[in-house]
Amino acid sequence: MLKSMPVKSDQKLIRILRLRVTDKPGHLGQIATLLGDMGANIGEISIVAQGPDFLIREFSLQLDDEEHLGKILSGIEQLNGVQLDSIIDPVCLVHEGGKISMRSRVSLETIGEMRRIYTPGVAQICKLIEADASQSRRYTGIANSVAVVTNGTAILGLGNIGPVAGMPVMEGKAVLFSELVGISAVPILIDSTDINCIIETVKAIAPTFGAIQLEDIAAPECFEIEDRLQGELAIPVLHDDQHGTAVVVLAVLSTIAQRTRMQLSSCRVGILGLGAAGTGIAKLLLAYGVKEILGTDLRDEAMQRLEVSGGRRSTLSGVMAEADVVVATTGKPGLINPDMVRQGQIILALSNPDPEIHPELALARGALYAADGRTINNALAFPGLFRGALRAGAGSFTDKMKIAAAAAIAAQTRADNLVPSILDRHTHQSVANAVEQAWFA
Amino acid sequence: MLKSMPVKSDQKLIRILRLRVTDKPGHLGQIATLLGDMGANIGEISIVAQGPDFLIREFSLQLDDEEHLGKILSGIEQLNGVQLDSIIDPVCLVHEGGKISMRSRVSLETIGEMRRIYTPGVAQICKLIEADASQSRRYTGIANSVAVVTNGTAILGLGNIGPVAGMPVMEGKAVLFSELVGISAVPILIDSTDINCIIETVKAIAPTFGAIQLEDIAAPECFEIEDRLQGELAIPVLHDDQHGTAVVVLAVLSTIAQRTRMQLSSCRVGILGLGAAGTGIAKLLLAYGVKEILGTDLRDEAMQRLEVSGGRRSTLSGVMAEADVVVATTGKPGLINPDMVRQGQIILALSNPDPEIHPELALARGALYAADGRTINNALAFPGLFRGALRAGAGSFTDKMKIAAAAAIAAQTRADNLVPSILDRHTHQSVANAVEQAWFA
Repeated sequence: MLKSMPVKSDQKLIRILRLRVTDKPGHLGQIATLLGDMGANIGEISIVAQGPDFLIREFSLQLDDEEHLGKILSGIEQLNGVQLDSIIDPVCLVHEGGKISMRSRVSLETIGEMRRIYTPGVAQICKLIEADASQSRRYTGIANSVAVVTNGTAILGLGNIGPVAGMPVMEGKAVLFSELVGISAVPILIDSTDINCIIETVKAIAPTFGAIQLEDIAAPECFEIEDRLQGELAIPVLHDDQHGTAVVVLAVLSTIAQRTRMQLSSCRVGILGLGAAGTGIAKLLLAYGVKEILGTDLRDEAMQRLEVSGGRRSTLSGVMAEADVVVATTGKPGLINPDMVRQGQIILALSNPDPEIHPELALARGALYAADGRTINNALAFPGLFRGALRAGAGSFTDKMKIAAAAAIAAQTRADNLVPSILDRHTHQSVANAVEQAWFA
Repeated sequence: MLKSMPVKSDQKLIRILRLRVTDKPGHLGQIATLLGDMGANIGEISIVAQGPDFLIREFSLQLDDEEHLGKILSGIEQLNGVQLDSIIDPVCLVHEGGKISMRSRVSLETIGEMRRIYTPGVAQICKLIEADASQSRRYTGIANSVAVVTNGTAILGLGNIGPVAGMPVMEGKAVLFSELVGISAVPILIDSTDINCIIETVKAIAPTFGAIQLEDIAAPECFEIEDRLQGELAIPVLHDDQHGTAVVVLAVLSTIAQRTRMQLSSCRVGILGLGAAGTGIAKLLLAYGVKEILGTDLRDEAMQRLEVSGGRRSTLSGVMAEADVVVATTGKPGLINPDMVRQGQIILALSNPDPEIHPELALARGALYAADGRTINNALAFPGLFRGALRAGAGSFTDKMKIAAAAAIAAQTRADNLVPSILDRHTHQSVANAVEQAWFA
């Protein structure tokens, strides 16, 4: 039973079957029964067209894979009065033409409007900003915009697929920025793995933006790029993979600590995988006051980085044997053998799309709390972090701001979950407020 | 009479007076009469609030300058039952918070939607593009987006005011792109006057965009920047100041030629001012087939450039004495003395906001046709040029495409004007279609 749950939640192929169905009672039941018997998860069913004696119905299905889809199509072929019209991939559909677009915030219907937003009226605003640069905050969108910069070297769990193949992720970030906190986010794709090229390019275009989000840039380059950019620019720079995940991990651990009356700073936290996310998590927990952090990574250079930050090096079995809290960011599905889990451990297995251990399995082996990347999603953190920093006119993201963001996320968490809903706009505003105040504190 | 016309059209201060007016018949007439007597041009009058015995009315006024406004305010103070509530600057108002914003094209209301546009669904699209880069045209916004790049060295007629002070113009361009042809245009501000820095920066971020528009970059740097970028990038690059204006000039001259049965290629065209616009006009007219082009500029290097292109150097008086068509792009208001105008000449005086000679004055001195920058606006050309090039997947802007754009603009011009309306979406689509076809021709 426990084994079947993760399998069901892993159905990753979503397809909409558009079927032409004879319009007589009984046909829908026949189809639904077939789909259920064959292990398809049925979502929405809708009618998209009708003829004299038939309906066109769409069935949204969650399936295991293409083979599963093939079997279902064969099954449908056998049914009387049902005919396949087409198969729609809703993920492709929603990506058609791209997910974002630069739009006007003003009307352009009359010549008078054109003369105000373009020549000759616009000259007046240019002169205003020339005389007092701070007016650009009020009369342009600069202070509300964020560059989402990637070179495509560490896109999701897919690795170095290049910046153009990473664009759908950057557009996704921009959708979240726009929809959750009203920030205008501009993807910037840089086809280079050269640290200096990336730094010089971002510096050159920085006047356009109120903040810089570095995104899906591989370790170890990401560390130097972030450090040097933040050192040389007067606007906040954040590598989301390092700090976004770290903020959500700190939020979840704070929530668990509060519920269990455990003292987070006294916990022994073990980190498996010291890439961008693992390193960011270690640094933030140390800044928060966690006294003992141990970690491991296949790269010696990554373990040295941990030691410099104040953690100590360990091994997979060492971490599993010693740590009260285990945070895994290795990109290695199934790395944590269920036998390694100790009674009462807290296990956050964050690799996407497949975790180091399924939370259900960890719980079954005695873990006190367990979660994966579906719960610990950096989209809970970065919109509010940037909204707060932009509103404050902050010059950087301080540890105080990140810790305040984590506290705000924890404060918005309901008793029946470990995190608030990513779609809850109120949570993002709370995070933004906390971040803004922390900058001025 | 002729002298007073240009003066009226020069009223550049637009203000909305918000007045609290006693709600009795006669007050509105009293105010309107006062405003008219004092030389204010009244636009829209609206009611924005009302009380038990008063109305708050807004009067949109075109005025000469701040002094003129001061006099009108004193006049209003004298009126009974009328009280000044506030003075609104509509140009400032429309710029508040910036004129553009990156927005989502997809809905983000459910977790299902989030999982399709962001993780985990988005990974499927990334892999699709990794396997076949051309899929990025279909599943990202890259092929529909244009970078609007400036270093702020030649913003409008204001000169080198820097890129941030130029941002309102870049945002204005983006509004036109979005509203007129549905292109997602992203301003990119580069705070550098170094040619290599600008070229390297644009090359580095080029994978993000389907085309590059260079904007308000000073001559002579603009020429090398455009040439080298177009040479090194596989997407179209256009310096609008050079080619946008040139296309509209060619369109207007084609229209005039058709109406007068004049052979444009046999005309002697004189160009005053050989900066970005003047040079672009000379090149396009030569490419079109105009055999004799003469020009002048204070900078010897600019005249050399003309000679290399196939024109010949002249002087202000030489151009005025010899040319059938005079195109002025000098940035020097009033440069053309009315006495210089010859009977039957065609005079396009394009400096903004104040032309080298007011069209009314040129016509009064015997010019056959005359127009200024309010008519010859590059916003007639660049939206369709880019829309057509993006749709074609073109690798550059060829002379053929520019000439086709000019022909399309001329074809859309009604008999009672020299150009179509900038706000006529149909015109921009015609230009786009012509440009697209010209790429494949």
